Amino acid sequence: MSVGLLLITHHELGKALLNTAVGTLGHNPFCSATLSVARELEPEVFNARATRLVNEIDSGDGVLVLTDMYGSTPGNIACCLRNDHRIAVVAGVNLPMLLRIFNYAQLDLDELTEKALSGGRDGVIHCPNRCPSES
Amino acid sequence: MSVGLLLITHHELGKALLNTAVGTLGHNPFCSATLSVARELEPEVFNARATRLVNEIDSGDGVLVLTDMYGSTPGNIACCLRNDHRIAVVAGVNLPMLLRIFNYAQLDLDELTEKALSGGRDGVIHCPNRCPSES
Repeated sequence: MSVGLLLITHHELGKALLNTAVGTLGHNPFCSATLSVARELEPEVFNARATRLVNEIDSGDGVLVLTDMYGSTPGNIACCLRNDHRIAVVAGVNLPMLLRIFNYAQLDLDELTEKALSGGRDGVIHCPNRCPSES
Repeated sequence: MSVGLLLITHHELGKALLNTAVGTLGHNPFCSATLSVARELEPEVFNARATRLVNEIDSGDGVLVLTDMYGSTPGNIACCLRNDHRIAVVAGVNLPMLLRIFNYAQLDLDELTEKALSGGRDGVIHCPNRCPSES
């Protein structure tokens, strides 16, 4: 099982997240791509680019699309993806979401989507004001 | 009420998030700063920088510190902040979290922390595969 991973975000947010995740775990288990959406261009330009990227990274098991916010321009581009591929879209991407799915890259698209959702939500934490060395 | 906002993240993640939020809403209601944590330097270097930034942005109502992941180096730097300021730390920062608190910048530190937590979690969404124009 080898789901593709596409990040569609404002500007360089997706690249920054992906680079951090890869740097943290030391490898990228996905065939992945990022699409940086700039305000200066029409959304239609990015719709075509997103479709082309999905075509490139889908090996037959579908593509998980992560985006920064539902209802934003990148989110709308993600939701509008239409083609012959299996696609799931999850908004609100953060680093815990990305690291969670990096650890479950072998799952199928539905299972991986659930991991993205739980990883993203579980990672939102009110942290104790205590150094790890003191715990 | 004027809480300060500090983002402590890996590399350029915090700057990318803040720039996107400011670009989306057209303004930044906070006295804010970002700290980009690089792997190449010792964490102690960043502890001192974080303390200095808190000193700069706290106008007396405390500082909300957002970080990318609990348990990561930036998260640990955030949790280790010690000084005479009121500080709350929330991990798992994403764009919905940031936009939520931008809309409630007048709240006090405890209320703003709750908004950050709910905004971050509520923003993690399994999106419908449907163009907004079709809904």
